[in-house]
Amino acid sequence: MLKDFEKKKAEDKAVVSAQIKELREKLLGQQQLIRDKKLPVLVLLEGWAAAGKGSLIKELISEIDPRFYSVVSPPIVPETEERYPFLYPFAKAIPENGKIVFLDSGWMESAVRKALRREITREEYKRRVRSVREFERQLRDGGYLVLKIFLHIQKEEQFERLQALAERPATEWRVTNEDLWQHKEYRRFLEAYDDFMEKTTDCVPWHILDGSRRKAAVRDAMQLLTEQIDQALELGKYVGEPFEEEFPLLEMPRLRDVDLTPTIEAEEYKKELKALQTRLSELHNLIYRRKIPVILCYEGWDAAGKGGNIRRIAYPLDPRGFDVHPIASPEPHELNRQYLWRFWTRLPRTGHICIFDRTWYGRVMVERLEGFCAEKDWQRAYNEINEFERQLTDWGAVLLKFWIHIDQETQLARFTERQNTPEKQWKITDEDWRNREKWDLYETAVDEMLKKTSTKNAPWYIIESNDKKYARIKTLKIVIDALEKACEEQFRKTME
Amino acid sequence: MLKDFEKKKAEDKAVVSAQIKELREKLLGQQQLIRDKKLPVLVLLEGWAAAGKGSLIKELISEIDPRFYSVVSPPIVPETEERYPFLYPFAKAIPENGKIVFLDSGWMESAVRKALRREITREEYKRRVRSVREFERQLRDGGYLVLKIFLHIQKEEQFERLQALAERPATEWRVTNEDLWQHKEYRRFLEAYDDFMEKTTDCVPWHILDGSRRKAAVRDAMQLLTEQIDQALELGKYVGEPFEEEFPLLEMPRLRDVDLTPTIEAEEYKKELKALQTRLSELHNLIYRRKIPVILCYEGWDAAGKGGNIRRIAYPLDPRGFDVHPIASPEPHELNRQYLWRFWTRLPRTGHICIFDRTWYGRVMVERLEGFCAEKDWQRAYNEINEFERQLTDWGAVLLKFWIHIDQETQLARFTERQNTPEKQWKITDEDWRNREKWDLYETAVDEMLKKTSTKNAPWYIIESNDKKYARIKTLKIVIDALEKACEEQFRKTME
Repeated sequence: MLKDFEKKKAEDKAVVSAQIKELREKLLGQQQLIRDKKLPVLVLLEGWAAAGKGSLIKELISEIDPRFYSVVSPPIVPETEERYPFLYPFAKAIPENGKIVFLDSGWMESAVRKALRREITREEYKRRVRSVREFERQLRDGGYLVLKIFLHIQKEEQFERLQALAERPATEWRVTNEDLWQHKEYRRFLEAYDDFMEKTTDCVPWHILDGSRRKAAVRDAMQLLTEQIDQALELGKYVGEPFEEEFPLLEMPRLRDVDLTPTIEAEEYKKELKALQTRLSELHNLIYRRKIPVILCYEGWDAAGKGGNIRRIAYPLDPRGFDVHPIASPEPHELNRQYLWRFWTRLPRTGHICIFDRTWYGRVMVERLEGFCAEKDWQRAYNEINEFERQLTDWGAVLLKFWIHIDQETQLARFTERQNTPEKQWKITDEDWRNREKWDLYETAVDEMLKKTSTKNAPWYIIESNDKKYARIKTLKIVIDALEKACEEQFRKTME
Repeated sequence: MLKDFEKKKAEDKAVVSAQIKELREKLLGQQQLIRDKKLPVLVLLEGWAAAGKGSLIKELISEIDPRFYSVVSPPIVPETEERYPFLYPFAKAIPENGKIVFLDSGWMESAVRKALRREITREEYKRRVRSVREFERQLRDGGYLVLKIFLHIQKEEQFERLQALAERPATEWRVTNEDLWQHKEYRRFLEAYDDFMEKTTDCVPWHILDGSRRKAAVRDAMQLLTEQIDQALELGKYVGEPFEEEFPLLEMPRLRDVDLTPTIEAEEYKKELKALQTRLSELHNLIYRRKIPVILCYEGWDAAGKGGNIRRIAYPLDPRGFDVHPIASPEPHELNRQYLWRFWTRLPRTGHICIFDRTWYGRVMVERLEGFCAEKDWQRAYNEINEFERQLTDWGAVLLKFWIHIDQETQLARFTERQNTPEKQWKITDEDWRNREKWDLYETAVDEMLKKTSTKNAPWYIIESNDKKYARIKTLKIVIDALEKACEEQFRKTME
């Protein structure tokens, strides 16, 4: 009997090996298709310490051309040293079209571990779970194949593996205190992993593999990967029902109803400007020390005065503590990734101010009107942007959005002046004139954008800029007011 | 008399203010030219703590459109936590064409401070000074305008300013322990700054401004900046004598003299491969723990077997500890910067391995032959690359370069096979056939490259790859040998 048993086992092993070989061939062939069809693939590998994530990845990549994949293992930074939003390292690491990224631990390990270490509150943990769901769904809707695998082993198995590692001098150092802590708290981790997976499996499902059977786990992972690639290649972009959450929105006037007559006297402007800039400078110190990140978004008509407005904000700031990001048409490496990627990668560190001169709202304005993306893409974007901005304000950012507004006559006057002033000619292009002809279309798009994305946490402000001076003073006041409130609120929290 | 004196002073002040206003206008006008002529401008501001670098930058940028500049202040990381080469943060920060970058402290402060803190040896300091000279010259030769300003104040002035800052609660926190230490050690800093400037002023000169006269310093800095921009716009790229250092070079055979017959038996290959990969895996652990960075460069004929060779190296490595960078034609944002920028930004951290699948040698091969750069650009590149590689090995990197070599018949056979095998067709393009026609031109270029850039610290290895298996074993052995030596050498150093 035992002989039969052994024979059967050897046969099984041979079968699995043969299967792996076959799947490897298949994956090899799929590479080319992934590239040709520009499919971006993100494989997230989570699991227990010593479950064999590293070896599994090694097997998965063994036959793939290194030009088509990369392996990323973002470190889990202690919460107190975290200078970016929770999802930042992962959003930064998403693959470009036609490439595969293997994430060796990711948003799950980070969220769960910090929750168990009590570095984040229960509330904050819940917010992170929500942001993960949003992030995964946005990737899926953006045409990404996201495959999530959890490599599971039981406590006894983990014990044996950690022991085996610890006993060999060459591998001893691999057993970290974090691993030992996890083993000790195995039960708590189990519940926490389980909870996380339960809550994040509806849009992009989790797949649990048995890490105790190494070969079979490799086979299963390869099977999952190749099947899902086949599917993604065949079905193309996800086209389910668009998800829409009800965000509490602020009432916004229609652009044409905005009174553009307000002005300010030159004398008063000078006085106010100076006082406000002094105050902003003080506040910059304060938010730097309290590590509050600030994001100011500028959109508006061509020649509305965005540049000058931004300069008046920037002038009193310490140049080491702020950045201005001019946003032009995306470059090829940016076009090759989900559209928010180029904004994720430009976020400020805590305590810093960043000013976006044009923003992610390009999606629902120029990209919509020029047909640079499909209708369902920009339709979905209102909700995606609201989620993105909530993730930023959840992180603690002050996020303000300005629509710098003028009327058509004012624009014409400024265009003409630019055309006739040699030093200003570079500021006016044929494209500006072309855009001007589409004023009504833009107005409709902007009205819709203001209506759908002016949330309480990230409000839009319409800045009347027929008088640029008036516009600058108004913007400065709004920024100062928001920073004061943020400082006050943070102080209140530390008192609690 | 005193009244006259006061009056004169007020007049002087008014004159300076008027000058600043005029220069500001000029700078404003130059923006457009910088953009149109794609001039990259790097302004380095060094100087004493509390000398007013921040305020000076603020004045300089006050009228510049934020789309055209950014301010960068790289932190000085303690040497023990440094994971990248000395110049890395600065090389990363260079402007793209048509933009201005203001560096608020840079390579001078970093080198001097670490030397004074005794975090680096005298020898290492000297190497850094040399690398700075090389870096600055390479930027200048690459068409960059580099302006270096040192803002000077005397010890008494520094005392008063630090005191003033420390006395106001709002600015007290700005006085750091590092600042106090500098003040205490003013004399030592003075000598060290002086020494650094003496040694780095020949290619790109230093300009010392008097920080005690704030307005005049602003005026002088603006004058320097606008004058040099005028000059750069007028003269275009620097066209002095090309600099060439004699690097100790290794003797290299000409490609046509290389014997391509070596082969290996299938059985022996299998056995050797396994043993070598096991050893490489152990060494990867070791270099990870000893924080030795490793850079492997692959160049070679199309279809020579680079991909498969790289895969055999990558297979035994922990995927979390290495990266493969496939190098294709530069993207627009890469073309817009000095040609080594896209390699600087891809360097591995200490303890990590990175494999470049094609490299910076594109400059002296494809860019030379296809005319993507001027003759003087690729002629200069041999020396620039030798310098760059010495900077990497000075940092402690193991740097190996492989030319994967085959003959024309073998290439033809492989091309034909690719063409006739559906799964391999993507690997062969019209460009490959076109390149093949230029075999002789490439051979000349490669021979010259091997001859001029096979330095002792960063040697070229010609890998006979008519038999791919033989090539893989040979490459693995060279890598293992180099890693063993590096580990040994490092161990010896720690014993000293």
